[in-house]
Amino acid sequence: MQTNFDLYEHQAQYYETDQMGIIHHSNYIRWFEEARTNLLDQLGFGYDQMEKLGIIIPVLAITCTYKSMVYYNDRVFIIPKIEEFNGIRLTISYRIIDKATGVLRTTGESKHCFLDKTNRPISLKKEQTKMYDLFNDYWGIDLSK
Amino acid sequence: MQTNFDLYEHQAQYYETDQMGIIHHSNYIRWFEEARTNLLDQLGFGYDQMEKLGIIIPVLAITCTYKSMVYYNDRVFIIPKIEEFNGIRLTISYRIIDKATGVLRTTGESKHCFLDKTNRPISLKKEQTKMYDLFNDYWGIDLSK
Amino acid sequence: MQTNFDLYEHQAQYYETDQMGIIHHSNYIRWFEEARTNLLDQLGFGYDQMEKLGIIIPVLAITCTYKSMVYYNDRVFIIPKIEEFNGIRLTISYRIIDKATGVLRTTGESKHCFLDKTNRPISLKKEQTKMYDLFNDYWGIDLSK
Amino acid sequence: MQTNFDLYEHQAQYYETDQMGIIHHSNYIRWFEEARTNLLDQLGFGYDQMEKLGIIIPVLAITCTYKSMVYYNDRVFIIPKIEEFNGIRLTISYRIIDKATGVLRTTGESKHCFLDKTNRPISLKKEQTKMYDLFNDYWGIDLSK
Repeated sequence: MQTNFDLYEHQAQYYETDQMGIIHHSNYIRWFEEARTNLLDQLGFGYDQMEKLGIIIPVLAITCTYKSMVYYNDRVFIIPKIEEFNGIRLTISYRIIDKATGVLRTTGESKHCFLDKTNRPISLKKEQTKMYDLFNDYWGIDLSK
Repeated sequence: MQTNFDLYEHQAQYYETDQMGIIHHSNYIRWFEEARTNLLDQLGFGYDQMEKLGIIIPVLAITCTYKSMVYYNDRVFIIPKIEEFNGIRLTISYRIIDKATGVLRTTGESKHCFLDKTNRPISLKKEQTKMYDLFNDYWGIDLSK
Repeated sequence: MQTNFDLYEHQAQYYETDQMGIIHHSNYIRWFEEARTNLLDQLGFGYDQMEKLGIIIPVLAITCTYKSMVYYNDRVFIIPKIEEFNGIRLTISYRIIDKATGVLRTTGESKHCFLDKTNRPISLKKEQTKMYDLFNDYWGIDLSK
Repeated sequence: MQTNFDLYEHQAQYYETDQMGIIHHSNYIRWFEEARTNLLDQLGFGYDQMEKLGIIIPVLAITCTYKSMVYYNDRVFIIPKIEEFNGIRLTISYRIIDKATGVLRTTGESKHCFLDKTNRPISLKKEQTKMYDLFNDYWGIDLSK
C-alpha cells in the first residue's frame, strides 16, 4: 500500500479573482476537483482511466466553508481525504491551506456515486473489485502525512 | 412592499459543459450568484449599489445538492429565497428548476455576512436601516409566486 | 428566408469580473460562443442539432480586440455576422455593444471547420445540403437589423 | 541579466473540458495569462508588484490559433515571448506545446498597454525606468532555452 502522496498545490490565478480583490468563491469547488482527480491519479484510478472502463463519478453534493481569503498569486495546498466509501457511495473531504503560512483557508466535502455509460449506478464491490479494494484501503487515512 | 418578482432564467451554455456531456457542477454555484445578485437588484440593493455604499457581501459557506442533470441549451429557473436574516448574517436558499418540465435539478444554500471596506463585519440594523428593513420584509417569503 | 433575428443580450456577471474591477478579457470569447450558438439556434441548426447529425464545429482561430471596458451588471448586445462560408470553412465576426449607450466594447472573429464524429473534415455542400444552403443564404448579412 | 527561466507548465483540468471531449477553446486565453503573469513574476515585476506601484496592464487584443487538441489531464508548456516593447505598448506571443510529445497545440498573441490608477496610459520609459530597462532587455529573446 502506497503511503507517500504528493500534496496537491495550486497557485491562484488572475482570472480567478473578482472585483472584491479576492479569489471568487466558485473556484474552490474547481480546486476540490483538481485535488480529487490528482488523488485518483496517484492511486492509479484517474478519471481518464475510469472513463476508459466506462465508469463516471458524478458529483451528488458539495459543501464549502470559507474560513479566510485567498488572494491572487497565493499558493495553496488542497488536501483531500476519503471520508466514506462503501463501493456505491464515496465522500471526500478537503482542506485548503495557505502554503506560506499554513493558515486554513477553506474546508469542504464532495459526495459521489459511480455510474456506467447508461447512467446506471454500479457497485464497485461487485463490478470493479480491484478499484473497490483500493478505495477501501485509503478510506479515512490522512494522505497529507 | 413589492410582491411581483421576475423569475431568474439561465440558458446553459456550451462552455459550461464538461466531457461527461453535462453542465459542470461548479457552474451551479455561479448560477446561485446570478440569481442572488438579480434578487438584490430587484429589491433595489444590487451588489453595485452595495459596493458604492462601501458594503461587500462575501460568501461564508455554500452547499449544493445535485438532483438531476442539466444539459447544454436547457433553460432553467434559479429561485432564491431569503431563509435567515438578522442584520449581521444572511442565508439564501436556491432551487434550480427545468423551465420546460418543472423538474427540480438542484437545491442549495449560501451564507453571507456584511463587511465594510476595511473588512470589518457590520450590522445592517445599526448602519443601514433602510436595507435592514428591506431584507427583513422579504425573509422567508417565496419570491417565485 | 428569415429576416428577423433577436439580438443576443448578456448581462455581465459578478463571477466574470476580475480584481481590475472589470470583466475579465477571457469571458468575451465565451460571449462570442453564446452569440454564435444562439445564431445557429435561430437559424434552426443549433449545436445540439448539429451534434445529433454527428457534426461538430470546432474553433480554429479567435481574434478579439478590446475597445472599451465592460463592468459588472452592464448589459451588452453581442452581434454575430457570417463573414465567410464555403461549406468547409466558416468565419463569424462579432461586435459587442453596450445596450444602454450603444458604445462599441469589443470586436472579434472566430474561424471554424466542420468535422464528423471521427474528426474527419466534411463539406456541408456535399453532405448536408440543407445546412449548406442556409449558411450560404445568410453569408454577409447584418443580422442585427 | 537572467538567462534561466522555468518553463511554465499547466495540466488540463476536468472543469476545462467541454462536451466535445476536448479542452474548451476559451481556456487557452487563460493559460496565456498564466504564462504571462508567471513570466513577469520571474522577471521580478509580477502583476501584484505592478498593482502595488499603481500600474495595471490591460489586454488590448488577443489572437489564438488552435493547431491540435488538448485533452483532459494532458500536460502542456505555455511559452511566452516578448515580441514588441516600447514602454507604451507590449506584445507577447505564446506557444502551447504538449509536454509528452513536443507537438504544437496552439499559438497566440496578446497586446497590452500600461495604465495608472486613473486609467491614464503611461510610458514606462519616463515613469518606471527600471521596469522599462528590464522589458527592453528581454524583448525578442526566446525564454524557453
